[in-house]
Amino acid sequence: MATRAIPIANQTLVLSAPLPLDGGQSLAGVAVAYETVGTLNADKSNAVLVFHALTMDQHVLSPHPKTGKPGWWAKSIGPGNVIDTDRHFIICANVLGGCMGSTGAASLAPDGAPYAMRFPVITIRDMVRAQVALLDALGIDQLHAVVGGSMGGMQALSFAANWPQRTRAVLVIASTARHSAQNIAFHEVGRQAIMADPKWLGGDYYASGKGPEDGLAVARMAAHITYLSEEGMHEKFGRKLQDRPDGTKGVKTFGFDADFQIESYLRHQGLSFTDRFDANSYLYITRAMDYFDLAEEVSGGVGGGRLADAFAGSKARFCLVSFDTDWLYPTSESRTIAHALNAAGAPVSFVELSAPFGHDSFLLNVPALDRVIAGFLG
Amino acid sequence: MATRAIPIANQTLVLSAPLPLDGGQSLAGVAVAYETVGTLNADKSNAVLVFHALTMDQHVLSPHPKTGKPGWWAKSIGPGNVIDTDRHFIICANVLGGCMGSTGAASLAPDGAPYAMRFPVITIRDMVRAQVALLDALGIDQLHAVVGGSMGGMQALSFAANWPQRTRAVLVIASTARHSAQNIAFHEVGRQAIMADPKWLGGDYYASGKGPEDGLAVARMAAHITYLSEEGMHEKFGRKLQDRPDGTKGVKTFGFDADFQIESYLRHQGLSFTDRFDANSYLYITRAMDYFDLAEEVSGGVGGGRLADAFAGSKARFCLVSFDTDWLYPTSESRTIAHALNAAGAPVSFVELSAPFGHDSFLLNVPALDRVIAGFLG
Repeated sequence: MATRAIPIANQTLVLSAPLPLDGGQSLAGVAVAYETVGTLNADKSNAVLVFHALTMDQHVLSPHPKTGKPGWWAKSIGPGNVIDTDRHFIICANVLGGCMGSTGAASLAPDGAPYAMRFPVITIRDMVRAQVALLDALGIDQLHAVVGGSMGGMQALSFAANWPQRTRAVLVIASTARHSAQNIAFHEVGRQAIMADPKWLGGDYYASGKGPEDGLAVARMAAHITYLSEEGMHEKFGRKLQDRPDGTKGVKTFGFDADFQIESYLRHQGLSFTDRFDANSYLYITRAMDYFDLAEEVSGGVGGGRLADAFAGSKARFCLVSFDTDWLYPTSESRTIAHALNAAGAPVSFVELSAPFGHDSFLLNVPALDRVIAGFLG
Repeated sequence: MATRAIPIANQTLVLSAPLPLDGGQSLAGVAVAYETVGTLNADKSNAVLVFHALTMDQHVLSPHPKTGKPGWWAKSIGPGNVIDTDRHFIICANVLGGCMGSTGAASLAPDGAPYAMRFPVITIRDMVRAQVALLDALGIDQLHAVVGGSMGGMQALSFAANWPQRTRAVLVIASTARHSAQNIAFHEVGRQAIMADPKWLGGDYYASGKGPEDGLAVARMAAHITYLSEEGMHEKFGRKLQDRPDGTKGVKTFGFDADFQIESYLRHQGLSFTDRFDANSYLYITRAMDYFDLAEEVSGGVGGGRLADAFAGSKARFCLVSFDTDWLYPTSESRTIAHALNAAGAPVSFVELSAPFGHDSFLLNVPALDRVIAGFLG
């Protein structure tokens, strides 16, 4: 690569007007933390809004301030790269309810104490609404594209349905138009694990200096199983045993240590997550995902609505990508969206890619995905 | 039905000899709690040993002493029923490591205090070994059949491989010859949830009067997701909302109550489980399942062995049943066993049944399963 893109990290907009929420309340003084990469052109027509997934944040290219790891999409963003910063101006904002600078449960309420569980339950559309306010502040009327994987894809769909004039293209990767019973079930296990941890303290753990880390780690472990494919897990870990600290090659210890590599891997995923994520934020964001049902969102009713109607006002081009080993949001979910877009007369391309990594494929090295993204964004 | 079978519940054998364990230790004074139904014939040739699954017990027909519910296989056992008590003598024993009368972590060690985590880690073969000792005590040299679903199927396989002369038939339902990485992963989440509960107290909670119920409930919730099929969950619950106690029809509450029926269902499954199951027992039994790898068990090595060799000494007839919606132990696992039996020259019939209930199908109303069982047992 000849040049490198320089992210402008750590930007924050505080919304001047209260943000109305789907739950009926409104939030004053909402902060939206965001990162940009590249240059907005003179007519402000080259912006690409990237929506992040559940445990990601605005650090799409810049190193994560807590872990020091490269931005979560750093491999794909740069001059001449999949998302070409010579052509596009990238915006990525921490979601409302998040814990990396945007207003969430850990933020201070007007009374000076953290919201904790006084924070209102938010929706995917509320997250998008905060980011539309960011676009307003930046003077961007219409985006070149919105892009998102997993929960980011839900935001992209909600954006397309509710603000149809504000983007010319919509790219949705490994996502769904509504959370299934099984999706909700996994999230509920995680929430119960957090809330069962005595250190959760009904959400008021901020002053204690120690949050419900054990519960949050269990929640992360359970979720992590859904991000990998059964086959991928088998190939990577199988029944391989851990080598012991004393140099012993893998043996069954006939104890409860992490004998199997998969156990050790999950424990590590759980523990490392607690260093960078707020437990209450995890509750609120998973709740927003569980509430997501695009057909219902647009119809305004409960459990009703035709998904095709969600796209009636859109003139955007759509691209949907699923992965054959993703059992969290399987291909059938993307196909449902594609059918609804067809019924709405919207231009849509839909591709199922083969990749061994399960749901996590959208974040990993899948060259075919890079080609689809680069081709669609132009 | 003209007559009803009368179970003889609450029988207990205390083994006279110490029980050797795969981990190298041996256990003295092992109790085996069991139930029998029907009459053992004069030449003791009509006994059917039924192995129970992870959270079941010996109450195969008699009502569960804690819940009052009918025995877990009551619908299939009786005169002229699927398992015909006019012809067969049914034996079902609580597994070693269980918590319904057989020796386990909650039992008193020789020093008069509960074993708790001093209980040795056991294997599926250890469970079977205790039941073989029961057969010895009953004077039963050869069974008409061994039968088991899920973990019960693992015991049936281990019995067939390690005591090949002692049964004429082996029926394995919805099971596997080894636990996969994903199987281990789900169990590890459950164990971590239990061990993260401060009331676990390193396993020494028996004197406190209150065990790690929150952790155990989370473990049960996570496991329960794997027992249902995604489709079954969708059909039964979908995104249906709970009616509220005040009579309000299902609405989103914009809170963290169980809005969705699937949430309410899982919470109920978790809570009701803690009334009847010991948390340490859950740790030990899941560990035994994770350690299960029949090929390795028989070869004596770690991670080695040909599965077909496990059946080299067997003269029994085998029947394998899988369910098309079971993603915990999918059909491919049964097929692997069938191929190994073919390679060993053993007579085997293998059928994949269509049923909407996922792994739980082996316990639910699946008429085709009844026909297979009745036909195979004769």
